[in-house]
Amino acid sequence: MPSLINFLFGKPLASYEDRDEKIGFGAGIPIFGLDALSSAAYGPEAALTILLPLGLAGLHYITALSTAIVILLSIVYFSYRQTIAAYPQGGGSYTVAHENLGIHAGLLAAAALMIDYVLNVAVGISAGVGALVSAVPSLQPHTVELCLGILAFLTLINLRGLREAGVVFLLPTWLFVGTLGATIVWGAIKTISSGGHPTPVVPPHQLMHAAEGVSAWLLIKAFASGCTAMTGVEAVSNGTQAFRDDVVRNARLTLTAIIAILIALLLGIAWQAQVFHVGATPPGQTGYQSVLSQLIGAVAGRGFFYYTAIASIVMVVALSANTSFADFPRLCRAVANNRYLPWGFTLRGRRLVYSQGIYVLTALAAVLIIIFQGVTDRLIPLFAVGAFLAFTLSQAGMVEHWRKQKSSNAVSIAINGIGACATGATLLVVIAAKFMEGAWITLLLIPLLVLLMNGVGRHYQRVGREIAIDVPISLDKVPDPIVLVPIDSWSKISRNGIQFAMTLSPDVRALHIETGEVTSNLQAHWEEWVAEPARRQGRKPPELVVLQSPFRYVVLPIIDYVRQQKNLGGRRIEVVIPEMVEQHWYQYFLHNQRGRALSEMLKLEAGPDVVIINTPWYLGKSNPAAENTAD
Amino acid sequence: MPSLINFLFGKPLASYEDRDEKIGFGAGIPIFGLDALSSAAYGPEAALTILLPLGLAGLHYITALSTAIVILLSIVYFSYRQTIAAYPQGGGSYTVAHENLGIHAGLLAAAALMIDYVLNVAVGISAGVGALVSAVPSLQPHTVELCLGILAFLTLINLRGLREAGVVFLLPTWLFVGTLGATIVWGAIKTISSGGHPTPVVPPHQLMHAAEGVSAWLLIKAFASGCTAMTGVEAVSNGTQAFRDDVVRNARLTLTAIIAILIALLLGIAWQAQVFHVGATPPGQTGYQSVLSQLIGAVAGRGFFYYTAIASIVMVVALSANTSFADFPRLCRAVANNRYLPWGFTLRGRRLVYSQGIYVLTALAAVLIIIFQGVTDRLIPLFAVGAFLAFTLSQAGMVEHWRKQKSSNAVSIAINGIGACATGATLLVVIAAKFMEGAWITLLLIPLLVLLMNGVGRHYQRVGREIAIDVPISLDKVPDPIVLVPIDSWSKISRNGIQFAMTLSPDVRALHIETGEVTSNLQAHWEEWVAEPARRQGRKPPELVVLQSPFRYVVLPIIDYVRQQKNLGGRRIEVVIPEMVEQHWYQYFLHNQRGRALSEMLKLEAGPDVVIINTPWYLGKSNPAAENTAD
Repeated sequence: MPSLINFLFGKPLASYEDRDEKIGFGAGIPIFGLDALSSAAYGPEAALTILLPLGLAGLHYITALSTAIVILLSIVYFSYRQTIAAYPQGGGSYTVAHENLGIHAGLLAAAALMIDYVLNVAVGISAGVGALVSAVPSLQPHTVELCLGILAFLTLINLRGLREAGVVFLLPTWLFVGTLGATIVWGAIKTISSGGHPTPVVPPHQLMHAAEGVSAWLLIKAFASGCTAMTGVEAVSNGTQAFRDDVVRNARLTLTAIIAILIALLLGIAWQAQVFHVGATPPGQTGYQSVLSQLIGAVAGRGFFYYTAIASIVMVVALSANTSFADFPRLCRAVANNRYLPWGFTLRGRRLVYSQGIYVLTALAAVLIIIFQGVTDRLIPLFAVGAFLAFTLSQAGMVEHWRKQKSSNAVSIAINGIGACATGATLLVVIAAKFMEGAWITLLLIPLLVLLMNGVGRHYQRVGREIAIDVPISLDKVPDPIVLVPIDSWSKISRNGIQFAMTLSPDVRALHIETGEVTSNLQAHWEEWVAEPARRQGRKPPELVVLQSPFRYVVLPIIDYVRQQKNLGGRRIEVVIPEMVEQHWYQYFLHNQRGRALSEMLKLEAGPDVVIINTPWYLGKSNPAAENTAD
Repeated sequence: MPSLINFLFGKPLASYEDRDEKIGFGAGIPIFGLDALSSAAYGPEAALTILLPLGLAGLHYITALSTAIVILLSIVYFSYRQTIAAYPQGGGSYTVAHENLGIHAGLLAAAALMIDYVLNVAVGISAGVGALVSAVPSLQPHTVELCLGILAFLTLINLRGLREAGVVFLLPTWLFVGTLGATIVWGAIKTISSGGHPTPVVPPHQLMHAAEGVSAWLLIKAFASGCTAMTGVEAVSNGTQAFRDDVVRNARLTLTAIIAILIALLLGIAWQAQVFHVGATPPGQTGYQSVLSQLIGAVAGRGFFYYTAIASIVMVVALSANTSFADFPRLCRAVANNRYLPWGFTLRGRRLVYSQGIYVLTALAAVLIIIFQGVTDRLIPLFAVGAFLAFTLSQAGMVEHWRKQKSSNAVSIAINGIGACATGATLLVVIAAKFMEGAWITLLLIPLLVLLMNGVGRHYQRVGREIAIDVPISLDKVPDPIVLVPIDSWSKISRNGIQFAMTLSPDVRALHIETGEVTSNLQAHWEEWVAEPARRQGRKPPELVVLQSPFRYVVLPIIDYVRQQKNLGGRRIEVVIPEMVEQHWYQYFLHNQRGRALSEMLKLEAGPDVVIINTPWYLGKSNPAAENTAD
C-alpha cells in the first residue's frame, strides 16, 4: 500500500527539500503560460464568430480588433512587470488589492479569480474533449468520463508537485507554439512570394454575403469576445514565488516570453486569416470547422503537419486547465494565511504542494463538468468577467502602492493607471456584451463568495480573541473533581477503569444503566468487589449509581447525569470511559461502540469543564498495569 | 426532525410497554401465515410447469402430487404443534436443533433459515413486481426501483413494530384467501351442477399433445418443485413468543388455521385445474399466463372479481416477504444471545423491535435484488433447500427432546420421527432435482455462514475469557504517570491543558511539533509562562519537548514519542489532548481536527497502559475553571 501511494504520488518530501520544487525560466513558460497561450486557439475564433453576419467584409476588421487586443495586452504586460518587481513573494491580484485597497477589495479580487480558475479547468478540459470528440465521433457518449479522466490525471500530476507537472506539459506547449508559428511563417512566405494573393492548399469555407452592415455594437461585442484571449496572463505574477534563484528576473523573463509569443500568434493568425479569407463557421452546426483548422489546412494542406498541429491544439486546450492547478491552491493559501479561508489551505502535503486547494479545485471542476455534461458552450460567457475584474483591482492596487511610496513614481503610477483604466473599461464592455448569456451568474457568485470568506474571517477573529492569552499558568488549588465511570458489568476493563478513576479524585461514581433488557451482577457484588477494599485502605468507597433508562438509551442518561451534577456546583467533572480496542477492523462490528459514541456526545453536548478520559483495553495484548495485581 | 422521525417510525416505546406489541390469533394469521399462504400462488404452478411435457395427460397427476404434498404438510403440521408446546418461548429450528443436537446442528439450521429468509424477501418482492409488470408493461424499465421501493416500505413498517405490520397485511391476506376460496367454491358448484364437465367462461390455454411419456423422475421433479408450497410453515413455531396471553394456545390456533387454509387451497386448486383443463404455460415466453389467472378466468370470467383476485395475489406475493421481517431478526437475536452473532442483534430499537436484524435483512435483500435486477427465475431454485434442511434438523431435534425426557413419549417420538424422515427424504429429493439449477449455491453458502458464526463465537469466547474477572479492585500504589500535552501555540486552550496535566502528575511534558512551516513563540516564552510559575510554587516545572518533523506529519511523531517512553519503563502514560469544540457542524472544516486524529491513532496504535484524556474547549461558551484565574 505505501509503495502504491509512493508510485502514484511520489515519495514524501521533507520541508528542507523545498528548493528543489522551485522552477526556472524554461519550465515556467509551459506551467504558467499554458493558459495564456492556449487562448490563441479560441480568442480570434471567438471574435470572428461575432463578425460572421458581416460575411467576407468582417475579415477587414479582424486585424484592427486583434491590434486593439494586442495593445491592451501590452498595457497589461507592462503593468504586471511592475507587479512582479514590487511583489517578488507572489503578487497576485488578491495580494496587491488587499495590501493597497483593503481587505474587501482583496477578497473581491480573490473571489473573481477563484471562480475564473474553476471555470478555466472545466472549460479547458471540456473544450479539449470537445475537439477530440468531433474528430473521433464514436467517443461522443463517453464525453463526461473522458473529462473526469483528464481531471483525475491533472489532479494526480499536480499532487506529485510542480516540477514533474512542468515536464509533462513541456512537449505539448512547444509543439503548439511551434506548429502554429510555423503555419504563420509558412503562410507569410507564401503570401509574399505570391504578391499578397496566395492559393490555399485546401480552400477554406466560402464566406457568406453580408447579412447586415457593420455597427459599433457588433464590433464591441467582437472585441469583448476576443478578449478571452487575454485570460491567464496574470498567472506569472500570481505565482512568482515558485521561481528559483533570482525570482524577479526569472518571472519577468517568463512573462515577457509568454506575452511576446501570444502577441505574435494573435497578430499572425489575424493577418493570415485575412489573407487566406478564413472566417468562422457557425458553431454547433454540421460542417463546423474551427478557424485554426481551416487556416492550417489552407497553408499546409491536410497532411502529417496538419494532424500534428491539431493534436497539439487539442492537448494544449485540455491541459490549459493546469494553470489553474498551479494558481488556485496558491491563491487559497494566501487568503487562508490572512485567515479568510480554513487553515487547511495553508498546509503542504507530502510533496510540498498545497494539497487541499488541489482537492477543492478538482471537486468544484468535477461538479461543473457533471452538471454541464462536459458541454462548454454555456460556460464560456461566465468566463473572462472574473479575469478582468481581477486585472482592474490589481492595477488599481498598484497605483495606490506607488502613491504610498514617498519617492516620485510618476511613470510607474502612469503605467498602472493606464492599465487600470484600460482593463476596467474592458470589464464594463465584457459585462455589457455577455450579461444575458451568463455573465450575470458570475456577477452573482462573486459577492456570495466574498460574503462567505468574510464570514470565515469573522469566525477566526472571534475565536482568536476568545482563546488568545499571554499570561502564565495558574496553579491555584481547585476542588477535587467528580469522577464518573460508566460500566455495564464487572470485567477486567471496568475494574481497570475504576482503579484509574480512584487515582484522580476521592469522589468516584460508577454509572450503571438499567434498561430492563439485561440483568447484571454488579449491584450484588459492589460491596465485595469495590466498596469494601476501598474502605480497608481508608479510602472513600466509590459509589454505584444506577440510572433507569426505560427507552433503552444508554448514552443520553449519562449526559443528563453529567449536566445535573454540573448544575450542583462548580466542580470539574471527569468521565472515565473504559474502552475495548479491537485488533482487527472487522472486529469493530462485534463490540459495543458505545464508549466511542459517549466520548463524542460528551465532547459536543456536555459543555465546559467536563474532561473525557479513555482508558483503552487492548484485546489480545497484555495490559500490564491493569493486570499486575489481578491474578 | 424528531417529529418527522416520530411520524415515520412511531413514538419511542419504553421497555415496560412491551406487552402491547404482542399479537393475538387474528393478527397472527397474516403476520406469520402470509409466507405459507402465498405459496398456494406458486406451488401448484411450479409442479404443473414440470408436467408441461406430458400435455393434457399431466393434469391427471396433479391431484395425486398435491395430495402427497398435503400429506407431507400434515406430518409437518403435527410435528410443529408439538414444537410449539415444548418451546413456548419460541422454538425455531435453531433453538430446537441447538438444544437437542448441539451447537453445530443449531448453527446449521440457523444458516439454512437465514439464507431462506433473505431469499424469500428478494423472491417475494421480485415475484410481486414481476406480476405487476406483466400486467402494466410500461413499468418494466423501473423493475429494480419498484422492488427497492417495496423493500423500503416493508422495512419502515417493520421498524414501527409488529402490531402495525399486522394491520397493514390483514386486508391483502384475507382478500387473497377470500377470492381464491370463492373461486374454488364457485368452480365446485359449476362442476357438480354440470355433472363434472363445466364450461369455462374464458377458455384456458389449449394444452399441447404429450411430448414425452410419464417417468418417475419427472414426477419426482414435479413433486420437488411443488414443495415450494411448503416454505414458510415454520414461521409460527419460530415466533411463538410474539403471541400474547396463552401463548401455546394462540400459536397452535394460528398454525392450525394457516395449515388448514393452505391445504384447502392446494387441493381445491388441483381439483379445479383438472376439471377445467388448466395447465401451465411455458414461463418466460410470449402468451405466458399463470395457472391461477387461467383458473379464475375459466371459473369467473374477466370481470371485477378477476381483477380483484389478481391484485390480491400480486400484493400477497410481494408482501409475503414480510414473514421474513418478522422472523429473521428474531432468529439473529437467538443466535446472538448464544454469542454466535454480534451483540447488536440482541438490542431492541425505539419501537421494541430488533432493529439491526431488520437492517441486515434489508441490506442483503437489496443486494440480491440489485444483483439479479429483480428477476426471480434464477433465484427460485436456491430456495426451499434451506427450509427443508431446517425442517429436518428441527424434527430430529424434537425426537432427541422427547428421548431425553424420562417419561414415555412413544407417540411424540413417533410423530416427530416420521416428520424428520419425511422432510429429510424430501430434502434429498429437492437437492437432487434442483442441484444444477442453483441449489448448489445454497449448499455452498450454508457451510460458509456456519463457519462465520463459529468464528464470531470463538472470538467472543476468547474475549470473555480474557476480560472475565471476579476479583476486587486493587489499590496498590503505582508510580506517577508521565503526562504528555501536545500543544502548538500558547492559548487559553493549551494553558488549560497544561494546568489540568499538572493535577495528574509531577512529570508533565509539553510536546511541540516543529514542521518548519510555522514558527511559534512557545520556546521563547516557556520559562516565563510555565516553568517559572511552577518553580515559584515549589512544583517541578513542565518540560517543553520539541519534536522535529521534516515531513510535516503531526500525529506520528507523538505516537513515536509515546512508544519510546513506554520502552523506557513500566510507567503509565497519560496524553492530555486539548481540543476545540465547534458550536456548529460547519465550523468543523475551519479548525484543526488533529486532536481527534491523535485520539483515534493513540487508541489504535499506542498499545496498553496509555490513557487518552480530552480537555474540550467550547467556542462561544464560558469555560469557567480554565478562565477563572486567567484575566
